[in-house]
Amino acid sequence: MEDIISLCKRRGFIFQGSEIYGGLAGTWDYGPFGVTLRNNVRSLWWKRFVEDREDMYGIDAAILMNQNVWKSSGHVAGFSDPLVEDTKSKKRYRADHLLEAAGVDVKGMSLAAMSAAIKEKGIKSPDGNALGEVRQFNMMFKTNVGATEDETSISYLRPETAGGMFVNYKNVVDSLHPKLPFGLAQVGKAFRNEIAPRDFIFRLRELEQMEIEYFVDPKDWEKAFESFRQQVHAFTDDIGLAPAHVHELEVADGDRAHYSKRTIDFEFDYPFGKKELYGLAYRTDFDLSAHTKGSGVDLSYFDEETKTRLTPHVIEPSFGVERTILAILTESYTEDELGGEKRIYLKFPPRIAPVKVAVFPLLKNKPQLVEKAREVFMMLKKKIPGVMFDDNGNIGKRYRRQDEVGTPFCVTIDFDTMGETLELKDTVTLRNRDTGAQQRIPLVDLSSHIMDAIF
Amino acid sequence: MEDIISLCKRRGFIFQGSEIYGGLAGTWDYGPFGVTLRNNVRSLWWKRFVEDREDMYGIDAAILMNQNVWKSSGHVAGFSDPLVEDTKSKKRYRADHLLEAAGVDVKGMSLAAMSAAIKEKGIKSPDGNALGEVRQFNMMFKTNVGATEDETSISYLRPETAGGMFVNYKNVVDSLHPKLPFGLAQVGKAFRNEIAPRDFIFRLRELEQMEIEYFVDPKDWEKAFESFRQQVHAFTDDIGLAPAHVHELEVADGDRAHYSKRTIDFEFDYPFGKKELYGLAYRTDFDLSAHTKGSGVDLSYFDEETKTRLTPHVIEPSFGVERTILAILTESYTEDELGGEKRIYLKFPPRIAPVKVAVFPLLKNKPQLVEKAREVFMMLKKKIPGVMFDDNGNIGKRYRRQDEVGTPFCVTIDFDTMGETLELKDTVTLRNRDTGAQQRIPLVDLSSHIMDAIF
Repeated sequence: MEDIISLCKRRGFIFQGSEIYGGLAGTWDYGPFGVTLRNNVRSLWWKRFVEDREDMYGIDAAILMNQNVWKSSGHVAGFSDPLVEDTKSKKRYRADHLLEAAGVDVKGMSLAAMSAAIKEKGIKSPDGNALGEVRQFNMMFKTNVGATEDETSISYLRPETAGGMFVNYKNVVDSLHPKLPFGLAQVGKAFRNEIAPRDFIFRLRELEQMEIEYFVDPKDWEKAFESFRQQVHAFTDDIGLAPAHVHELEVADGDRAHYSKRTIDFEFDYPFGKKELYGLAYRTDFDLSAHTKGSGVDLSYFDEETKTRLTPHVIEPSFGVERTILAILTESYTEDELGGEKRIYLKFPPRIAPVKVAVFPLLKNKPQLVEKAREVFMMLKKKIPGVMFDDNGNIGKRYRRQDEVGTPFCVTIDFDTMGETLELKDTVTLRNRDTGAQQRIPLVDLSSHIMDAIF
Repeated sequence: MEDIISLCKRRGFIFQGSEIYGGLAGTWDYGPFGVTLRNNVRSLWWKRFVEDREDMYGIDAAILMNQNVWKSSGHVAGFSDPLVEDTKSKKRYRADHLLEAAGVDVKGMSLAAMSAAIKEKGIKSPDGNALGEVRQFNMMFKTNVGATEDETSISYLRPETAGGMFVNYKNVVDSLHPKLPFGLAQVGKAFRNEIAPRDFIFRLRELEQMEIEYFVDPKDWEKAFESFRQQVHAFTDDIGLAPAHVHELEVADGDRAHYSKRTIDFEFDYPFGKKELYGLAYRTDFDLSAHTKGSGVDLSYFDEETKTRLTPHVIEPSFGVERTILAILTESYTEDELGGEKRIYLKFPPRIAPVKVAVFPLLKNKPQLVEKAREVFMMLKKKIPGVMFDDNGNIGKRYRRQDEVGTPFCVTIDFDTMGETLELKDTVTLRNRDTGAQQRIPLVDLSSHIMDAIF
């Protein structure tokens, strides 16, 4: 994990948020390669789950919503963590974390039971002081909208993107008349006031979700659920996660939300253990019914074919952008030996690699090589996204730099390209990241050869 | 304006935020066509200003930042609007808006002068009550991060994306070693607690910016400024704004921020008047110097070639996503007569249109037409982003629906396609949105014909 974090900082993927000001825990900033990796992941998800389908409708709702959205959804009352206060320093800690660290299984434990267990086990705060009673702490960030600061002006930073989809469900039905089953999809930020953000970009205060709310006739829920279960695996394949590292956890009756009739957590083998990557939940009619009740607007659906009115049930596949990025980094990070030297490389699937091809002149101080390399660079850039030019340092160093950012192909223009060896004129060296192998390719075939390997 | 808002809601572009809960002023949600239009605008901007260049580095910083970022930038002290309170109802109003409505020129007016002018003119609140003194009201949304709510845990929703770039300037310099001049670019949300959000998506509480901080040797600022001035115009051309509707306003000495030596506002002829679309400012070394001082981290730049150390100066081109969308909608909204009937259409440039091509079978109840149309649809979908299938209602209605969402091309599969007229076998009707003209195109040429017209 330390190696990944260090590589991410050193090579411009991910930096600590507000770093020069000492940071802000639970926030991270993306540098040039990180932004592109992230864009590629989002685009691939959007293509698979929205563009390639005809039953999916994209949505982009505001982060700030009317506070009543979160009253209806139950977040104002129930989106909370159990906290306990150091009676002396007044610092607050997650009671469940302290108990887990002391070997107590906290699953399903009430607040009172946690308080009792802390006393019984004699658990102290990290500063060695006594702890108070365990209390609920709401994890939504609160702010006030408008000129006055009172109860009526409260708004929250959305804790999940789902709310934006339920609130716009009727707008989409009225403007586009989709037929059941259909889904709304959204990619966007969500915020959670985690008391103990940790594990790099795994547990964050500011995160991004890619979520779907898929509306079905209640009798068809199992078919849709199974279809999404398979599509989650297809997506983890797409982003290069080994099937052996992705696990399904069927969430047991007592551990599911009260309204959910089935939930699968998809877990991944992160460096710090097997932890949740994605979720898939059957939420029955809980959401549409709650928002119908809360808003007073009827969110039932009239089926033109069967001439019946029903409240659709919901299947919710939920993907975290940062957990995806961390899984990809974990899976891709490789150390090996090449040419007798230790090297680090990221074996990104070419499709999501931030840089697809790097173009080098063999020598920086030979104008004809540089000119030809620029020509090849411009030619590739027109056809392929993510092409980079580099003439800094010797070829070996440039290969290692590209390995570290996961560039699948490097192209070198040398004297043979210029015709020094007649039969090699207008050919270039194409170097493969994973094997280090080099092959000679005619310039005319270069872009199609690379395109075929990427997509 | 009302026509545009109504079309946007009716056809699934833009809905009022949290609409079923009575809304939240200053927030808007994007429906399926709106999301795609927005993605297309963002992608085009990113391509022009980041991907197509070698001197630009993408960044994606967190929305929540360490509060000291905004102390250094001057936002905590100075990012405010003048407010005045109704002494009876306690409602608050923008003092400058009330004065402007009364015909007073408020430019450069102090708070005391505004208070005096309100008394002198006898201006009352909209409810007819007396008004109090004019006070500054900070426009940043405030929240608390962590378990305790005190001064140290305050964080703000960033009021602009710029801060994220200055804070990461050193990270990019250290990891990627760019040579001056170079720029950081970012697309992301920003938040402003506007007291009077208005004009649809023009004045918002939650908005999205596409910003660049371009770092130059102080002696080169004019060249970079001029280059961006031209690129702003090239971009407004790209998104289809008529040059006659885009105006430059050279901001006068007294009206510029104290540190800026030159600022141009690019204004557009919106339905509600000529208002700011984009901005271009020369900010000297104000930002890097302020953040060096505030963070204690040296943000100077060492030039390897000249072996000198300097604090780069900054040129800042700033683009609002929603103002861009509103300008595009304003420019594209057209009413005309076609075939003796009034029609509404959006003449989007094909490149940014959410749907590029719609494919229809002439009749819904002829399986061979539907099957062939599905085949053509799948073929186009593989090659072109934004292809839609529609078999609902008669052809005339389908054309009108596509006109309203700005689809540049419609393809109809009819009996001639199937070989009823032998010489027309395997040809389709391609209909042009703007002229309504139809032409017969062989299926084999269809995708390349459309691709040429789009890109």
